[in-house]
Order: sequence, then structure tokens, then C-alpha cells
Amino acid sequence: MRRIALVTDFGQRDPYVAGMKGVIAARTTAPVHDLSHDIAMFDVFECAWFLSSVAGYWPAGTIFVAVVDPGVGTARRIIAFEQDGKVFLGPDNGVLSLVARSTRAHSVENKSFFLPDGSTTFHGRDRFAPVAAALAKGTSLDELGPVIERIVRLDYEPPTYGDVVRGSIVAIDRFGNAITDIDRSGIPFPKFAARVRGHTIDRIAETYAAGGEGPFLIVGSTGKVEISIAQASAADRLHLSRLDRIELYRP
Amino acid sequence: MRRIALVTDFGQRDPYVAGMKGVIAARTTAPVHDLSHDIAMFDVFECAWFLSSVAGYWPAGTIFVAVVDPGVGTARRIIAFEQDGKVFLGPDNGVLSLVARSTRAHSVENKSFFLPDGSTTFHGRDRFAPVAAALAKGTSLDELGPVIERIVRLDYEPPTYGDVVRGSIVAIDRFGNAITDIDRSGIPFPKFAARVRGHTIDRIAETYAAGGEGPFLIVGSTGKVEISIAQASAADRLHLSRLDRIELYRP
Amino acid sequence: MRRIALVTDFGQRDPYVAGMKGVIAARTTAPVHDLSHDIAMFDVFECAWFLSSVAGYWPAGTIFVAVVDPGVGTARRIIAFEQDGKVFLGPDNGVLSLVARSTRAHSVENKSFFLPDGSTTFHGRDRFAPVAAALAKGTSLDELGPVIERIVRLDYEPPTYGDVVRGSIVAIDRFGNAITDIDRSGIPFPKFAARVRGHTIDRIAETYAAGGEGPFLIVGSTGKVEISIAQASAADRLHLSRLDRIELYRP
Repeated sequence: MRRIALVTDFGQRDPYVAGMKGVIAARTTAPVHDLSHDIAMFDVFECAWFLSSVAGYWPAGTIFVAVVDPGVGTARRIIAFEQDGKVFLGPDNGVLSLVARSTRAHSVENKSFFLPDGSTTFHGRDRFAPVAAALAKGTSLDELGPVIERIVRLDYEPPTYGDVVRGSIVAIDRFGNAITDIDRSGIPFPKFAARVRGHTIDRIAETYAAGGEGPFLIVGSTGKVEISIAQASAADRLHLSRLDRIELYRP
Repeated sequence: MRRIALVTDFGQRDPYVAGMKGVIAARTTAPVHDLSHDIAMFDVFECAWFLSSVAGYWPAGTIFVAVVDPGVGTARRIIAFEQDGKVFLGPDNGVLSLVARSTRAHSVENKSFFLPDGSTTFHGRDRFAPVAAALAKGTSLDELGPVIERIVRLDYEPPTYGDVVRGSIVAIDRFGNAITDIDRSGIPFPKFAARVRGHTIDRIAETYAAGGEGPFLIVGSTGKVEISIAQASAADRLHLSRLDRIELYRP
Repeated sequence: MRRIALVTDFGQRDPYVAGMKGVIAARTTAPVHDLSHDIAMFDVFECAWFLSSVAGYWPAGTIFVAVVDPGVGTARRIIAFEQDGKVFLGPDNGVLSLVARSTRAHSVENKSFFLPDGSTTFHGRDRFAPVAAALAKGTSLDELGPVIERIVRLDYEPPTYGDVVRGSIVAIDRFGNAITDIDRSGIPFPKFAARVRGHTIDRIAETYAAGGEGPFLIVGSTGKVEISIAQASAADRLHLSRLDRIELYRP
């Protein structure tokens, strides 16, 4: 069974998501799921990280459509690829690069799948939506366009695991948790402390509620180390921002 | 196949949308699509423009339900009409008037389709939802109530196309684009410049990304002229508001 | 027919809702409905009131999943019970206690229904979602865990109905209506006035639009008395907050 899962920076007040959904509904009865439309505007990295955090939980047959696309209408490509039985469709601006294990993809160029007389400003509705609907109806990637060998990668430095583990804050969530890209399973020592933005954090908690007063480290829901404060925003209190560097060390 | 598409000013935090969806789910398995629940409170015009921007992309069989209804519970009518195989249902306060090509509609008065003992404050749940479900199950408009000849129109002056084209800003989107009601296809000269709020804008761009520094004009995704700034809010920078008047002229 | 209805405090920007939906989609084709993901963070009471306001409108077969769970990962239980042919699933922190007519529930302990190697920080995805999917596929409550006799109740004092009716403001909605827990049907006099936060309000309106200038009382969509101002926020103007006490008396 095929389904379409949307993640965009369109918000919900403007008619953009509704336009995309209409184009899809006009072409297929495949279910459409809203992953998020509240990605920060133009924030390709935020969307890429979001997608890499959730794609693994969705079943084969899911067609992910990621539309954070500041270069809409320019020469930037639209790409699509299959991985683990799922299809990923988005602009070739790095938004799919954190979830992709290969650098190979199809360049979506076959105009017969696009809306005729489409705009240069809204490919979400005029290209991504009808292509997603076609995929849901069984169109193969080969029909969409030729294979390219190198999709665009984000300018992002993954963490390094050694005596000191170095990584970055990659997301601040609604609760103010500062989520890093450091995977617990890669840390080569049993306990750890953190240095970040001049703070030293040496308490580790198993649950948010057990964190007590002040900041603590916790292994979050995707196995990544987070900086948290119980029922308060660690990001606000410690002035943490995305892409801040963090070091973990053996205490 | 019939489906229900909802657009309201209820927001998502209060139990209003969830109440509507429950009433629908209790009556039909027809899919329910969220177009938006983030229309500005009481903003009939915003909802009317939203609906006119997206309805054309949805297939026949769609039942649009628009609930921005400051007069809920008063003598204002509820109306429904069919157009292009789609049904439109909403209060008779102008919210359907921008999408309607005719002034004729049914006045929804048959109480047997309403929730028994419904409230005077929440017709979304007590009247619109069960009527939408009945329509999805095949109820005809004739069963809902008599035909009226004149639905309520918004106090809105459409653009005029001449040597100078005069129109209005009708929406500010999330990205700060100021969207006018001037259709590119109606402008009787090949290039154009704009006067709006004391600003003169004489650059036209094909894509948002190609706009360079400063404000520019662009033909947006519904064929309307927009005032934009690349990756910034034109509305904020130029102090533009909805219903500001704009003039386009041959440069 | 079974369906899953979600209410959480996760917001829509972070990948939490999308993770839950993926886990569900991987296990069942039952429809998933978003009730709200915009409950205030950690606000168990808000979610409990929300649920009690809408559950009655949903049909038998609905599986409600309420995830406002500041104690996630601690020894707090997960509970599930059936009522009116609907199933309610949530943490045992009071979030289900306003909708529950009984204090009896199942303690969800059977780990075979949880994601293997799940986190301590995100039971929404790792426990609630797969359990909801199992319920949608026909798993009985008995399979989930043993019966407990006393679910956790909120520290909440229901209204008292006498010559003076005493209650509380339980919600402030998007429009600024201050919604009380006083049911119109329990007030033992035909007309009423209110004292709240030093204000006296003695006007009653049938509809929001008929309220005229200044604050008025109105019987809202769940039969509860509200304090409102037409097209303005009564809560802001009168400085009303949730849990403020209110008295109604015969004027």
C-alpha cells in the first residue's frame, strides 16, 4: 500500500498546503499524511534533520515529499530516490541528503508529470504534488527522469567520536531540549559530561522528570544526546542555538 | 468519490475542530481533509480568498466547508451550492462569495440534518458538520432547503484593467509576500511597474531566488502579481497591509 | 470500524507526531485523526478538559490516545479503558480522568506491544502508538495488562449547585472566551449573574454577535456558561485565567 507523507515550510494559514493536497486528491485516493508544515521558513537543514529522524518509523510504500525550496523555479533540480522500499522526493538542495545513504538519485525532469502551465513560484503544487500522486499510482522512478550520480549535500560536519566526542546541536524542540547529533552508541566511554557555550554539564538523567534542578544530559528518543531541564527550556536558560558545538568527555 | 475539506478560523488548540471531525466520523467514512484552521479570527475575507485560491485544484466530489462565522446563531443563513461538481457549504456572510460564479444557492434550513438540541454558539459542529456528512452520503441540495437568489457578497472592489491597472493587496503570506488581486493575464502591456504605499517597484523577477536585493514584482502561483523580497518579508519592509491599493503602469 | 484519534502537547514543528504516525501506519491502515497537537506543554488538565469536551461526539470504535506526559519514562503507569464502545489510552496522570466515569482501567504493561529497545523519553512513539495500532487491529484490553482499581485523578474541584453556584474557569479559547465548568442544566434559577475576579456580569446573550458592548454570559457549545465579549477577548479585557473561581447567583 502506498501513502504520501508531506513535510514543508508552508505553515497552515496560507493556501499552499491545501493546493498541494487538492492536486494529489484529484489524482489518487492514496492517503496523505501531514508530517509537518511548520518547518522554519527556508530552513533546509531543519527539514533534512526532521526527515532523517522519522523516516525509519514509516513503512515501505511511503512516499516522502519534502518541500523547503528557496530556489524554486531556478535551475536547481528536483530529485527522487528509493531507499528501504520508500521513495523520497524533494528539491536537490540538501533537504534529502541527511536521510540518503547513497548520492545517486533520479533527476525529475519529465514534464508530462507536472501540471501544465505551472508556476515558477510554487512547485509544491505544480510539480511535487502531481509527481507524488503519479508515484502513488505506480509510476517508476525511471519514468521521471535520468539518474544523476551526485545529489547536493548540506554543508554539515558530522560528529567525531574519540577520547573527546565533538558534535553539534542540531535541533531545539518545542520543550527547549537542545538535541545534538552525537549518538550514544558511538561514545567510547560509559559516562560522559559536556562542554557547550561555556557551560559544563555533568549530570545524566534517565528520564526528563528525574532530572531535578538545573541542566542535565539525557539520551533522547533517536539515541542522540540532549541537553535538558525538567519542565523548562534548556535552550533558553543556557542560550543554546542550533549548530552550537558541543564536546563530550569522560568525567 | 466524495470527500470533505474543512477551512475554519478555529485554530488547533481548542476542541472545536475535533468536535466537528467527531460528528463527521460518526456519520460517514468519507475522508476529511484539513485545508486550514488558522484563518485569522472572524476574517471572512481571508477565508473567502483562501477558498477561491485552492478550490480549482480539488476534484469533483469535494465538499468544501468554510466556517468563519462571527454571526453564528443569529438570523444569518447557512448556504450551500454546487459548482463544477463540487459543493460549497458555509454561512451566508460572503465567505463563499469569491469562489461563487452565481449568486444563487440553497438556504440550509432543514433541521432534520442538524444535531438535535444543538448550540447557538457552535454551528460548525452542530450544523455544518452533520450537513457535510449528509452531503457526503448522497443527500441532495434540494433536501437541505429552498433556493435563494442572492447570497451575501463581500464589500470588495475587483481590480480594473486599463492603461493603469488598479487593484488591491489581498493577502500577506507566511513569507511576507504581498499578494494582489491583479491577474497577469489581464494586464494590457508586456512589462509593468508598480506604485504602492508611496513605493515605486520597477523590477520584475521570474523566481523568488532571482529577485536579488530589494523588492521586486513577480507573478505568483495563481497568476496574480505579488510584491516580494528574496528570503525576507516584503510586507514588513515596505509596511504593506491587506487592502492597500496598488497601481500597475507601463514603465 | 476502528479509528485512532490523537491529542498531544507535541506541537507540529518537531518530529514527534510524525514519528507516532509512522509507527501506526507501519502496523495498521486504520485512519488516524489529529484532534490537537497544540495542547499547552505539560498541561495535563488542558488535555483532560479537551478530551472530555469532544469524546462524546466521536463514534464507537474510536481509540483516543492522549499524550501529555511530563512523567514519561518514570514509574507512572500507562492506562487504557473502554467506555461507550470507545477506548481511551494515556499516561496515568489524570489526563483521562475527566472523561472516565469509572476509576477502573487496565495497566498497560505487556512489553510485547511496545517497540523493542524503545526510549525512556518518547513513549508516544515507542509505546502509545504501537499499542493504539494493536487495539485498532483487535487486541483486547485484557492482553495489554491487568486491571487496576484506581486511576490517578486530577486535583480538581467540580462545581457545586445551590442558591449560589460555584465553579471555575476551565479553559480560555482562541477567541478569548472564558469557559467555566458550570453546566446550564444544573443552575437552579432561570436567570443568573456572575461574580468573577471582582467583576459583576449580569447580561446574558443568546449568541456571540448579540452580545453588544462589554462582557456578557452565554451558554456555550457544551452547555457550559462562558464569559465573552463580542469579537474581542474577554479573558484579556477582564484579566481572567484558567482556574479562576466564579459564582453565579439569582440577579
